[in-house]
Formats: sequence, structure tokens, C-alpha cells
Amino acid sequence: MNKRVISLGEIMMRLSTPGYERFISADSYNVVFGGAEANVAISLANWGVSAAHVTAFPNHDIGKSAVQYLRFAGLDTSHVYFDEGRMGLYFVENGAMQRSSKIIYDRFDSVFANFDPSKVDWKKIFEGADWFHWTGITPAISASAAKLCQDAVKAAKAQGVKISGDINYRRNLWQYGKQPLDIMPDLIAQTDLIIAGLTDFENCMDIHEEDYVTACKKAQEKCPSIKYVSTTYRESISASHNKLCGVLWNGEELLESKTYDMTHIVDRVGGGDAYMAGLIYGLLGSGDQEALEFAVAASVLKHSIPGDANFVSVDEVSQLVKGENIGKLLR
Amino acid sequence: MNKRVISLGEIMMRLSTPGYERFISADSYNVVFGGAEANVAISLANWGVSAAHVTAFPNHDIGKSAVQYLRFAGLDTSHVYFDEGRMGLYFVENGAMQRSSKIIYDRFDSVFANFDPSKVDWKKIFEGADWFHWTGITPAISASAAKLCQDAVKAAKAQGVKISGDINYRRNLWQYGKQPLDIMPDLIAQTDLIIAGLTDFENCMDIHEEDYVTACKKAQEKCPSIKYVSTTYRESISASHNKLCGVLWNGEELLESKTYDMTHIVDRVGGGDAYMAGLIYGLLGSGDQEALEFAVAASVLKHSIPGDANFVSVDEVSQLVKGENIGKLLR
Amino acid sequence: MNKRVISLGEIMMRLSTPGYERFISADSYNVVFGGAEANVAISLANWGVSAAHVTAFPNHDIGKSAVQYLRFAGLDTSHVYFDEGRMGLYFVENGAMQRSSKIIYDRFDSVFANFDPSKVDWKKIFEGADWFHWTGITPAISASAAKLCQDAVKAAKAQGVKISGDINYRRNLWQYGKQPLDIMPDLIAQTDLIIAGLTDFENCMDIHEEDYVTACKKAQEKCPSIKYVSTTYRESISASHNKLCGVLWNGEELLESKTYDMTHIVDRVGGGDAYMAGLIYGLLGSGDQEALEFAVAASVLKHSIPGDANFVSVDEVSQLVKGENIGKLLR
Amino acid sequence: MNKRVISLGEIMMRLSTPGYERFISADSYNVVFGGAEANVAISLANWGVSAAHVTAFPNHDIGKSAVQYLRFAGLDTSHVYFDEGRMGLYFVENGAMQRSSKIIYDRFDSVFANFDPSKVDWKKIFEGADWFHWTGITPAISASAAKLCQDAVKAAKAQGVKISGDINYRRNLWQYGKQPLDIMPDLIAQTDLIIAGLTDFENCMDIHEEDYVTACKKAQEKCPSIKYVSTTYRESISASHNKLCGVLWNGEELLESKTYDMTHIVDRVGGGDAYMAGLIYGLLGSGDQEALEFAVAASVLKHSIPGDANFVSVDEVSQLVKGENIGKLLR
Amino acid sequence: MNKRVISLGEIMMRLSTPGYERFISADSYNVVFGGAEANVAISLANWGVSAAHVTAFPNHDIGKSAVQYLRFAGLDTSHVYFDEGRMGLYFVENGAMQRSSKIIYDRFDSVFANFDPSKVDWKKIFEGADWFHWTGITPAISASAAKLCQDAVKAAKAQGVKISGDINYRRNLWQYGKQPLDIMPDLIAQTDLIIAGLTDFENCMDIHEEDYVTACKKAQEKCPSIKYVSTTYRESISASHNKLCGVLWNGEELLESKTYDMTHIVDRVGGGDAYMAGLIYGLLGSGDQEALEFAVAASVLKHSIPGDANFVSVDEVSQLVKGENIGKLLR
Amino acid sequence: MNKRVISLGEIMMRLSTPGYERFISADSYNVVFGGAEANVAISLANWGVSAAHVTAFPNHDIGKSAVQYLRFAGLDTSHVYFDEGRMGLYFVENGAMQRSSKIIYDRFDSVFANFDPSKVDWKKIFEGADWFHWTGITPAISASAAKLCQDAVKAAKAQGVKISGDINYRRNLWQYGKQPLDIMPDLIAQTDLIIAGLTDFENCMDIHEEDYVTACKKAQEKCPSIKYVSTTYRESISASHNKLCGVLWNGEELLESKTYDMTHIVDRVGGGDAYMAGLIYGLLGSGDQEALEFAVAASVLKHSIPGDANFVSVDEVSQLVKGENIGKLLR
Repeated sequence: MNKRVISLGEIMMRLSTPGYERFISADSYNVVFGGAEANVAISLANWGVSAAHVTAFPNHDIGKSAVQYLRFAGLDTSHVYFDEGRMGLYFVENGAMQRSSKIIYDRFDSVFANFDPSKVDWKKIFEGADWFHWTGITPAISASAAKLCQDAVKAAKAQGVKISGDINYRRNLWQYGKQPLDIMPDLIAQTDLIIAGLTDFENCMDIHEEDYVTACKKAQEKCPSIKYVSTTYRESISASHNKLCGVLWNGEELLESKTYDMTHIVDRVGGGDAYMAGLIYGLLGSGDQEALEFAVAASVLKHSIPGDANFVSVDEVSQLVKGENIGKLLR
Repeated sequence: MNKRVISLGEIMMRLSTPGYERFISADSYNVVFGGAEANVAISLANWGVSAAHVTAFPNHDIGKSAVQYLRFAGLDTSHVYFDEGRMGLYFVENGAMQRSSKIIYDRFDSVFANFDPSKVDWKKIFEGADWFHWTGITPAISASAAKLCQDAVKAAKAQGVKISGDINYRRNLWQYGKQPLDIMPDLIAQTDLIIAGLTDFENCMDIHEEDYVTACKKAQEKCPSIKYVSTTYRESISASHNKLCGVLWNGEELLESKTYDMTHIVDRVGGGDAYMAGLIYGLLGSGDQEALEFAVAASVLKHSIPGDANFVSVDEVSQLVKGENIGKLLR
Repeated sequence: MNKRVISLGEIMMRLSTPGYERFISADSYNVVFGGAEANVAISLANWGVSAAHVTAFPNHDIGKSAVQYLRFAGLDTSHVYFDEGRMGLYFVENGAMQRSSKIIYDRFDSVFANFDPSKVDWKKIFEGADWFHWTGITPAISASAAKLCQDAVKAAKAQGVKISGDINYRRNLWQYGKQPLDIMPDLIAQTDLIIAGLTDFENCMDIHEEDYVTACKKAQEKCPSIKYVSTTYRESISASHNKLCGVLWNGEELLESKTYDMTHIVDRVGGGDAYMAGLIYGLLGSGDQEALEFAVAASVLKHSIPGDANFVSVDEVSQLVKGENIGKLLR
Repeated sequence: MNKRVISLGEIMMRLSTPGYERFISADSYNVVFGGAEANVAISLANWGVSAAHVTAFPNHDIGKSAVQYLRFAGLDTSHVYFDEGRMGLYFVENGAMQRSSKIIYDRFDSVFANFDPSKVDWKKIFEGADWFHWTGITPAISASAAKLCQDAVKAAKAQGVKISGDINYRRNLWQYGKQPLDIMPDLIAQTDLIIAGLTDFENCMDIHEEDYVTACKKAQEKCPSIKYVSTTYRESISASHNKLCGVLWNGEELLESKTYDMTHIVDRVGGGDAYMAGLIYGLLGSGDQEALEFAVAASVLKHSIPGDANFVSVDEVSQLVKGENIGKLLR
Repeated sequence: MNKRVISLGEIMMRLSTPGYERFISADSYNVVFGGAEANVAISLANWGVSAAHVTAFPNHDIGKSAVQYLRFAGLDTSHVYFDEGRMGLYFVENGAMQRSSKIIYDRFDSVFANFDPSKVDWKKIFEGADWFHWTGITPAISASAAKLCQDAVKAAKAQGVKISGDINYRRNLWQYGKQPLDIMPDLIAQTDLIIAGLTDFENCMDIHEEDYVTACKKAQEKCPSIKYVSTTYRESISASHNKLCGVLWNGEELLESKTYDMTHIVDRVGGGDAYMAGLIYGLLGSGDQEALEFAVAASVLKHSIPGDANFVSVDEVSQLVKGENIGKLLR
Repeated sequence: MNKRVISLGEIMMRLSTPGYERFISADSYNVVFGGAEANVAISLANWGVSAAHVTAFPNHDIGKSAVQYLRFAGLDTSHVYFDEGRMGLYFVENGAMQRSSKIIYDRFDSVFANFDPSKVDWKKIFEGADWFHWTGITPAISASAAKLCQDAVKAAKAQGVKISGDINYRRNLWQYGKQPLDIMPDLIAQTDLIIAGLTDFENCMDIHEEDYVTACKKAQEKCPSIKYVSTTYRESISASHNKLCGVLWNGEELLESKTYDMTHIVDRVGGGDAYMAGLIYGLLGSGDQEALEFAVAASVLKHSIPGDANFVSVDEVSQLVKGENIGKLLR
């Protein structure tokens, strides 16, 4: 697809215990790199979209490894910055059956959190871009990260680039003195497509509703630039078995996707990012319902793949949407 | 929990084929150490109980590794003995689908089996202890191991320590000349809580009943010190999918637990020991029904963890009992 | 079982990504060797049948490794040939949930494909043999491989050896100038037991029917030597969950097997070969329905084992047929 | 370094036995991708040079993995082509002590070997390029690969791009009808820097001399465009212990490098390519002796790294040249 | 040995690339826990000394894993504290041949660095203790860590506990406002045995000498409590091959140890800590020269073992001192 | 080579810690099967000799795995017996540098040790055999194993089969009541080629000499059937670096081999068995000095290969004897 997408966000080293080992008994960790926004960009790159990710890494060998990982995953890394400091990390323990999966974050005081926003020439970055993606994680990390996100959104808007934001409210972040309502409403107000659940609406838009469509409408009233609001519904029967569907409010109606039964989950981290990527891909090229179905199917496939990144092809997603070649042995 | 538990029993090196490899094609084995009684103690130590395990190991580097494993798992190892000889072993092949799991034991003539019971000063060991746990495996191993168990039970009783016994009848053992009925009734007669199914009642107490409650009552008639009798019911739909519940007879009524659907079993070895530990923990601190529910939930979680030991927290078990945070992604 | 079976066919190195890794992110492959016909022979050898496989390997260290693998798996390798050239390969990516499994073949121009059929003394090979097994893959590989298969079938027939053929039509093969209908009918006409589905009938026998029994009857009309026709029906709920049953037409009626629910598939490659082996084993020693049930149960167990080869015992298959010891923990 | 280098050549999947396992006992292979020319380009990319590699891959998932590997390693992959066909492979068994390392190639009939040279627009590729690198492997593979190399060299020459060629005569290749002397002299005649030993001179330039300087002079007489000739001398005390030095003839004198004692070799594959890359890097930016020393030191470090690619920094090479920080623990 | 040793210091998670992989290509890390002071205590515990380590960990599952590791390694963990915060980490890349090993630290702002020194009841900790060990790393981490170390040293001195300090000056630390000379002299003045090289003397004691004995004498003049000064000399022929010896100044003369040729180094991290432990062990029980030889031999053996901890026995060290059983196959 | 060799002896499961991990920290073991006599037979099978090994295994899945391993390694397993009981085991920890390698045996009371010698029809086994090989381990295991060895030697002698015996005195064995001098002299008296060092002469032949040739002569005086006596000399500089040579006394003179420097030992277990196999191979086909050189070179190569078995070819050994292709990269 001949489009260009820019994403912004922190990338962390992900250290996962092998198989179903708990933290307590693991003596090795598998290593990949991931972040909510880069995961979206990697999906899109994988689907033929030109995708550049803006971030900052430590200027040591592990920072370089992270850049190599992004290149491996197909991203344009010409807007990656390096500085003194540490890399954010997170540790993952994969659940099974009734036992939950666990994430321990170790991301404070990272190079990205301390990155000076004035170093980024957003105008240049957005040249030729069609879409910009951010999440509510970035403004939650630090004052400078919030500024970085504000600069980016403002520049994208100014250059006519479409904007998506995954609100993704995380209570454990927001420790630098600001509250979500200090920052998020203004960012959301410039955004075309948001992913938000009722909790996100409450915490980041001060919208307290129990009905999703009502909440979407109120959001659009507050922020007329919002064209789409979406979220997924996940039923957790166990760590190994979830059901998943998505809804997309397009200003007129609430579209609903098929519901998928995910009976043998391999790795659910990144499932939401795969959905976001699917929505962007769909909305860049097809109708609303098609975009929604593509997004959910992409997310479902992510659950079958170890790691954060959704290494599936457009064909694989499309076939799942159409119910073709499901779980076959393809020769 | 400010309690002290003592357990007695052999610990074996467990050698498991990786993943779903069969013995025939495995060229490496994963190594942990386990034993029915120590598995119980490890659960309890993990839940904050002071737990010491009494056993004997070979005085070579692998025996030392076994002690280190016990310390790693939280046990007080000050009553571990060392002697010339071999370590008991068992080999595990993990089943899948309709294919059963398999255990090959190689435990005869071990240091524990040959251990001289007179070396143990039970009086000292039970100072400050609240509970003693044994299983029917120990008296089945050898004459000296039977004597060791008899000494322990007698000393515990004398010092007012509560006693639990998992009858756990194993036909393949009992090869040293004695039959279960020669030894077990006397041990059971001094025990407060027993885990026993109908087969155990038959073989170890000469009680031949088809109704569980009737069997429990007969057991109590024979051995008035018995306060609780319990067992689990497991439905094996496949090696990967079992259902599990437990019952607890408290002298008055037969309490039943919730039934859990375990749809993606990781490792079922040690599931019974996790249940036993849960019962002890529960009975040390709460009511009968709570103890039973705690025990079954603990056992369910064990099935999601590789190895013999049930590395779960009290919180994790309690949440499962309450139906909270089941199979979620906890950040 | 005091029988001797001869099989003919190419054996490839199988390179599989570990766990659920996709090709794109695997940095190691697990290695075994397999081929549709040898997989059948290995099952039979495993069940006590004397089984020799006829094939050709490169005369380098990897070719030697392949022979060692066959010996490891129990085959008589005295009719394995060596020559200059390459080994056929195939790469396997294991699917999960809705994501399909994938095979990438790299088998053209192999030593087997180029092997000179005149080097094989079939008369000697079939001395004392009771059964010969071939598949439709061999004549699809190359002109010389087709000739090899034709020689073998003719010699077996001449020496009164029973013959089975798994039609196994593969569109991607047949690239050497001949079409299936040029070669297959004559081979099938000399065969006693064929495995064929409706697509196989169409492409290899020019029988276009929608009803399986009608197709079987037409096949027998064309080729009176056919005594049995069989196939399996597989419902793919997902890559992790299939249902499987088999049917066997014995010239009089269509026998149907139990249907098995395979809910946690480990590796489905080789499932059809395990079925074929089960049929041969059953028909060599018991009645038709027993043979069919044995075949399906053998195939089900294969799905629980990594690799191509079905390392299960006759006891394990028989117990599954009888519904005994399903998914237990056998000590 | 603000330079742009273009390389051309086949890239193969490299499958290596783990540790010191022989082919015969390995049941997994480690996977990377490599090729003599791409290895050079990867070194240069790693050192800050803009490096694009021209090659062709199969258009399946493993071909895509290969491209991802190149991107991971820092190469510009915008001139990689895809086509139907197979990927070349090679298998590596790592020697130790007196036991030699072994490579088994399986590269015939690959997509690269069959690639249509007319698809490449060399003129565009060489825009802005400073250097082009080829090896004698490419013209040895197939007629079309030879044509591809001839086109590239001619275009580079025409556009004033400096050219290096690693003669690298391989007797096992050259199976498509042409002999080295049919093709190589013309390619060499357009090249500025060649790596050649006495055997290469004999087979590819028809120069039969025993003295290296005399051979270099004759080569320059035949091909006046040659400005530099270089080779390495390796003393193999064992597979684990080699000595290495290099010589560079610059038209005037034969410069000699330091000799390094490599006492604990990890992986010697790619050692020559690391040397070639070092020479190019050095000659692009510094004097002859400096270039030579840089090249040998780069090659030495390669021997300490698993895989084909020489992931070392300019600093690490420069420090080794200066004798600083050798084998330290850097914090 | 019937002695009790207390150590104080931060423990970090150590993440090492497998084999000789560089950071850039590792996709898993091996995990152990280590710290300069705990490494000393682990050696001593391993040799039969009662050893307790004082430190602080995050109160999450990885903090708990660290405690379990200490227990596994034989330490008394009753003085380990838990708090909110992060765990310090360090990443290790193992060098080979001329390529150096590399450590990347990520330890700032850890639970230990922020730990409130007033929480520790040193008086109680030192009851029954014979020795206290600290290093110059602790006062370099943070003001609170420096205070913790000062409190400990003062309390040990007050209770008549012998004190050792490994000066271990690290330029990259000391970032909280204080300089080594602000803190270290007072700590050293209360210490009986110090490990210090000339650089340590300069930076931490303001002693600028080129002769080691002169420096030792000056140190003792400044700090009369110093009874022993020691250091090791390491010649790095390559990352795989070092020579090692130690010297011990006992106030009267400079004792020198044998020099060992370490030709196939497995892991040199922790080599200095093994030496320190050997000195303490030796000085607790034998003469000065014996202690020195024991220390160097212990350090040599550490280089043959992966990880930070020196899991060797007193017998193994003693035999190396005596030149017995070196590199044999012991059955 | 068109010869047939029979060997007799116990085969154990070998469990080795990975890499340089000590027992204390290994959490997996690599698994192969080995035994002194079978190791000899495997070498010979690998070199084209028809080799059958006589042994007994437990009749469970691990016993079956052992047979499969022998078939994989090329042995004729038609004289392998199965019985109830356990498999002998041994644990290996690989040394490095000055740290010794360690073996912990766990072989008592195995199926082989308890095997009834009357079950073996030696007459039939020796039909067509050229050579029989035994070691001093078998008569040291148990009375029945001694009887088995006595029967075998007697039958071989009676049928004119050449006999070799590796005296291999092990103090830790011989625990069943007999002493070596009760059994060994008679076995040796029927043997043509023995491997024996001075300690073996003392313990098994009551020959107390300090000069090797004198001891050989005395041995031949006592046992005139002895035609050859041989031993190796190993200098252990470290676990990683040994020197090795061999001597062969042929009744006339003491031949000496080249001495090899083995500087990077991978695995020395089985080195002596590789030597024995080399001697047998050489003496079956060439002159004495050639046999000796072949034997030492074979043993040297074994040290470069993980596991007990010496998977090297005749060509590889011969090239090492001739000093060709040592430590090269063979393409």
C-alpha cells in the first residue's frame, strides 16, 4: 500500500520467560523489543506501508540492537535518536489456564523519558506522511515525553496528516506531576481515530458514561475532529482461551465485528496494537466494516505468535476475515 | 503465616523430556527435584509457613544440588542428612491430547531407602512445630524408611503436633516384604487429616466400601484420631484437559468444592501435593469449606506450572477461589 | 508381528521452526528426516514388523545422518543407495489457533529424483516380503522416480507381494512432463489397498464422482485388483484443534471409524502416514473394522508427537481404540 | 564514513550445527544468512558506510526472512529481487582441535543462479556510489550470474565507481560450461583492487608464478587498471588455533601486516570477507599500510564471533591495530 | 568452618548473551544474580562458613527470585529487605580471543540505591559475627548507600568484628555529588584487610605511589587499623587467556603467590570476588602465605565456571594449591 | 572392512551438564548412551566393520531408547536382551582449565549387572566373527556379569575368534565379593591384545614392575596367548589441554606413536575406547606401527567431539596420521 505512516513512542527490551516458566524458576529470558506504537508501525510495514518510527535509544550496544530489531521488522529508522542513559525494559511471564500472564515494567528514567523534544524536526518527518499514530503512554511517561507528543500531534495536524491515538490509560504511569486530564483532552481533540474504552473516556476525557455509543457521541461533541472511536471486547475464559471482537463507531453507527474464539493463545501481548494497525490499514484503503473486520482478524492472528510484533501478511488476515484456510496445513 | 510444618520423605531427581518429546527421541532432560512430601512443604514455605523437610541425600555433588534446590524453594534444610549411596530418580514424559503422560521410576536402593532411622532426633525436630506431614510412599520404600515414618509419627503425636498423611497407595512399591496392612493402619491411627480414595481405603485400611462417606466413617471408627478425610476427583478428558474438584469430610458432612475445567494443562505432576498443601494451609488458618476451596484452587494452578513445585502465591490462589483475575494480563 | 514390509520413496530433511515461531523470526531449526513412505515403514517397524525402506541419499555426511536416522527409527537400511547430489528438504512452520501451519518444499533435483532405477534389484528386495508400499509422490517427482516406482510395483506383483498405494495427489509436483493420468492408473491397477479422496480419484484415475462409495466402486471396476479403498475426514476447527475419522471400503461396504476430537495438536505432519501404517498393520493381522479403528487411533496419537515419525506402541494404539488410559498419568 | 558501496552476490541460508556437534549427531541447526559479498557489505554498513546489496531471493517466507536479516545487519535492500525458486543453502560443522571444519554446499539451481540479469538497472544502482564489490563466486555459479557480474562491472567502470574483486577460485563451482579463464580475465581487467593468492592467479589469470610480487606485477601488466593486490596468509595449527597476516601490493611495494595469534577461534567462516571489507574501508579513508592493518585486525576479530557477519565496530578494530584493550573486561 | 561472615551490597540481575554471541545478535540472555560483595559471601557459604548478606530487593516476583537465588547459593537471607522500586541489572557479553568482554550496567535508581539505612539494625546483625565485608561500590552508588556502609563499618568496628574492604574504584559510579575522597578514607581507616591497586590508592586514599609496598606502608600510616593489603596482577594475553597472581602485604613483607596460566577462560566476572573470599577464608583459618595461595587458586577456578558465583569446594581449591588433580577426569 | 567384531558390556545413560556448567547449577542434562565396550564397537561400525554388541537393557521406554541409540550409531543390536530392572547411569561434568572433569556413576543393580548369563548363546553369536572385545569393567560389576564375560571369552577362544581386553581396573567397582586377581588372570590368559598400564598389571595380573616392557614380558610369560600389549600416556596440562601418545608392545619391541598436542579439548570421555578401536581396526588390516598411529590419531579426534562415541571416518583418522588437512575449513 503506497502510504506513509509515522509513529512515536518508547521501545522497550522485552524479556520473557521461556515456555510457561514463572519468573521464579526462569534462568534465561527470550529477548525482543517492543512498544505499543512501534508494534503498530511494524504491522503496517509488514503489510507494505512505508512506516517510520520516532524514538530514542541509549547509545550503547543494546540501543543499537534495538535499532537493528526495528530494521529487521521493516521500519524506517532514520528518525531514531541516541543519547546517554538507559533502555526501558519489561519482563513477561506467560500465563496458562487459570494462571494470569504478568508484566513487570522497568521503564522509568529511560533515554526516551528524558529525551529533549526540541531535537525533533517534526515538519521534516511529516513530509509525505499520510498518518501519524500516538498512544496515551507517551504523555504519561514524563513532561518531556508529553511535550514530544504534543509537538508531534500539532505538527501532524498542521501538515494535514491523519492522526490516530490509542488512549491506553495506565494508572501506574503519570508519575511526573501531571494528570491525564491536564494533557490528554488537547491531544485527543486533534485526533481523527481514537481507541478508547469506558475507563479511558473517564480518565482521559472526563466522560462518565455506561453506554459506549453515548460516550462516543460525547467525545465527538467535545472533540469534533474525532471521526472514529473504537475498542475491543475480550472475554478471558482463561489465559489460554479468550474471545475477541471489536466495535467501531464512525460517527453514525456502531459497527460490530465477528467474534473469534481464541482457544490456544500463544502470546497475547501486542494484541491491541495489532488491532490498531489493522484499523489504520483498513481505513487507509477500504470501508469501515472491512477495516473493523481486518483489525479484529489481525489481532486474533497476533495471539498465535510469540513476541510483540504481528508478523502476518495481508493475505493471512484477509483469509481469516473470509473464513478461508483457517488452521490448515498449507503446502 | 506464623506456623511451622515438618515433612518427611524421599526427594528424587526428576528428569523430564522437553516439550512434548517422547523418551525415545529426547536428547536432553530438564532437571528439578521433587517428592510428594517435599512438594507439600515447598507450597507451604512459598505461602509464608516455616517449613523444614527431613530427608537423606547422597554425599556427592548431585546430592548437594538437591539441597540447594530445596533451599531455593524456601525450605529449612537443617534436618537433611547425607550418606554414601545413590539418589532416587524419576523420568517424566509429558503427554498431550489422548496420549498419556508417563513416569519411569528409578528409586530403589537410594540413600533415603537405606537411611538409618536412629540418626534422627525427632524430638528436637518437632520443637516448635505445628504440623507434621507424611505419605504412604515412605513406609512403602523399605523397612528402614517405614521405621523412620513410624518414629516420626509417634514423636509428633507425643509432642502434640498435628499430623497429616497422604495415603497414596502405590502397588509398585512395597517390595521389601511387608504389606500395606502390616504398617499403614497404625500410622493412620495417629493421623488427624488423611487424603485417601476408595482404593487407598481398601489397600491400606482394609475398608471395602463403594460410598465415600461410609468409608470415611468406617475409617474414623477404626481410627478415632482422624478428624478430616479428603480426596480429589479428576476427570481426564485428555492429557491436556482435565476437570478437578475436591471433597472434604470433616466428621460431620462431606464438603464439596467447585469443579474447575483445566483446558491447557502444562504439567500435572505434583497436582495432588499442591492440593494437600492447600488443605493444610487452609485448616491451619480458616474454616473447612475455605480450606477445601483453597486446596482445589492451589492444585488447579499447579497444573499450569512446569515441574513438581507449585510456585504460586496465597494471593493467586485466593483470587482464583474468588474468581478474580482469571487468565488476565496483569501489569 | 512376523511380517516383512518394503517401502519406496524419497526422504527429506525436515527443518522445523521451534515452538510457534514463524519462519521470519526463527534463528534455529529442529532437524529430523521424513518422507510419506518411510513414515509408514517407521510406524510398522515400531510395531514389530520387519521393515526395509528403499531410497537414495547424497554420499556426504548429511546423507549419512539420514541413514542413521532411519536405523534409529528401526528400519532395515540395507537397500539405501548413495550418490552425488543434494538432499531434498522441507521447512515446517507450526501453526496455532486460526493461523495455519506451512510447509515450504525444496526437493527438486535431489539424489532420489535423479536416481537410476536400473541400480535396484527388486527381485532380491522382495524376497520374503509380505507387503509393498508406495505413494503418488514418487511418480510425481521425475521420470526416473516414476520408472523406479513402476519397476517396484511390477516386481512386487510378480512375486505375490501385497501392495498399498497412497495416491496423495500433489499439484506442485508433476513438473517433469508427465501428467498423473499418464502414470498413475497403471500403478493403481496393480495395487490392493489405496488411500484416495475424491480429488485423488479425479486427478489420478479420471473418476469424477461426488459420492465416495460410487467412486470406490468405479475404481474397482477399472482396477479389479483393488480390494480396499480408504480415506480420512478431517475437520479443521483451528490449527490446534481438529476432528478426525476414517472410512474403509472393502468392496462390500463402507466401514466408518469413531471420530476423535484432537484438541491440542502438537504436530499434524505425518498424520496421514500414521493412518496408512495402521491400516497395513491391521489388515496384516485382524479384521477390517479393527484395522480401520487401529489406523485412526494411530493417526490421532501421531498428532501428539513432534516430528514426522509416529513413535507409539501397539499397546498405546490398542488402548486408545478401547478407550483405556486416555490422557492419564501412567506410572 | 560518508561513502556508498554496492555489492553483488548470492546469499545463502547458513545452517550450522550447535557447539562442536558433528552433522551426524546434530538435531538442530542455527540459522543465519550469508554470502561472501554481502558479508563484506555488512561489515561496511556496520562501520557507517552506506551499503546496498544486489541479489535475488525466493518469493516465499524464507526469502523474506533473508531480506529481513540483511536489513537487521544494516544493508540497504532496495535492490533485492524476488522470484520463484529455491534459496541456496550451506551447512557448517565447526571443527575443534585437529578436526577440520566442514561446509556442505547446496546452492545449485537457486533463484540467484537463475536470475535474469536484464532485470537490473545498474545505471540507477550506481548513482552516487563510490565502490562496487564482486567476487569470483558469482561468475562461477551460472551463465546468467556471470552475465550479471559482467554487466555490473562494466556499468561501475563506466560510472567511475571504484571496483574490488575477491577472485576466490572454487573448483566445485564452474559447472555450467564456462571455465574461469573464459570469464575472469575480463572482469579482473576492470577492477582496481583484487584479492588473489597464487592459486587464483593460476586458475583465473593464467599467471603461474611462485613469487607473490612477481605474480602481482604480471597481473598488473595484463590488467593495468589493477592498483592493489592483496591476500592473507593463514597458518592452521589446529581448527582452534590459527595465525593470520595479510599482504598488500600497491604497485610499488609489498606491505606486510602484523601477524596475529588466534588461539581460541569461535568461527572462521567469513574471515576473508572481513579482511576484504577492512581493506575497502581503509583504502576509502586512509593510507595503504593503515588499510592493511585495519583489514587484518578486522579479520582477526571476526574469528571470535559466531556466524558469517563481522559485527565489530571501527573502534574495536582500531584498538586492536593499536594493541589497546585486547581481551579485557570493558565496563 | 565455624565462623560467621556478614556482607553488604547491591545484588543485580546479570543478563549474559549465550556462548560467544554479541549483544547485537543475542535473542536470549542467561540469568543469574550477582554482586561483588554477595559473590564473596557465596564463596564463603560454599566453603562451610555461615554467611549472611544484607541487601534490598524490589518487592515483586523478580526481587523474590533474587532472594531464592541467594538461598540456593547458600546464604542466610534473613537480613534482606524489600521495597518498591527497580532491580539493578547488568548485561554481559563474553569476549573471546582478542575481542574483549563487555559489561553494560543499568543499576541507577535501584531499590538498593534508594534504601533507607535507618531500617537496618546493625547491632543485631553483627551478633555472633566474625567478619564483615564491604566494597567501594556501595558508597559510590548513592548518599543513602554510603550512609548504609558507614553505619555498618562503624557498628562492626564497635562490636569487634574484623572488617575487609575491596576498594574497587569505579569511575562511572560516584554520581550523587560526593567524591571518593569524601567518603572512602574514613571507611578504610576502620578496615583490617583491604584489596587495593595503585589506582585505588590514588582515587580513594590520595596516595600517589608507583611502588606497591610503599603505597601499602603509606596506607597503613594513614590508617593504622589496616593489617593486610592485597591485590592481584592479571596479564591479559587475550580474553581467553590470562595469567594471574596475587600479592599480600601483611605489614611486614609482600608475599607473592604462584602465577597461574589460565588458557581457556570460561567466565572471568567474579574472579576478583573469588580472590577476596579466598583471602578471608584463609586469614580466618591459616597463615598468610597459605591464605594468599588459597585466594589465587580460588580465583583461578572461578574463571572456569559460568556466572558470578564461584561454586568450588575447599578441596578443589586446596588441591590446586598443591598441584594435585589438575584438569583430570575424576571418577 | 569385511570383518565382524563382537563386543560385550554394560551401556549406561550418560547425563552431561551443558557447556561448562557444574552439577550444582545445571538445570538440564544432555543425554547419550555409552559404555567402554560399545564405544569401541561404535567406532568400528563407523569405519565399516560389522559390529554387534551384546548387552541387556530394561524393558521400558528408556531401554528401548538405548537400543535405538545403538542402531543409530551403526551397531547390530540383534543380541541385545531386555529384562525388568534399571538402567545404569552416569553423570558427567565437563572440566575447563585447571578444573577437573567429574563423573558420578549410578550403575549398581542394573539389568546388565543382574543379567542371567545362561540366556546367551555365545556359540551362535560368534558364528562368522573375527574379533571379540571385552573390558575389565564387566567382571568387576557382579558375579553374573563376570560369568557372562568368562563364558564369552571361553566361547570366542573355542571358535578361534581373536580377543582383545581393556583391563581398565576400577577400584570403585569389584564390590560383589571377588577380587580382580580371582577373575582377571584367567580372562587375560585367553586374550590376544590387552590394554594395560602399570596399575592394571599390579591389580589384575599381580605383576609389580616399574618398567613397561618388563611388565609386558612378564605378562606374556604368564599368559603366552598375549600377542600385543598397549597403553596410552596422557599429560594433563589442564582439563582443556592434554598431550597424548600410545605405545604398543608386539612381543618383540615397544613401538611408540607420535605425540599429539590437544589444546582445546571438547570431551575426553571415550578417548581410551577410541584408541582401543583404532588398534583393533589397525591390527585387523595393517602393520603394527600403522595400527598404533591409527589408534592414537583416532583417540585425538575423539577429544574434539561431544559424547562417548567417536563419530569420525577412516579418512579423517588417516589424514591426521599423515598430517594432512589438520584443522582446515573443508568445503
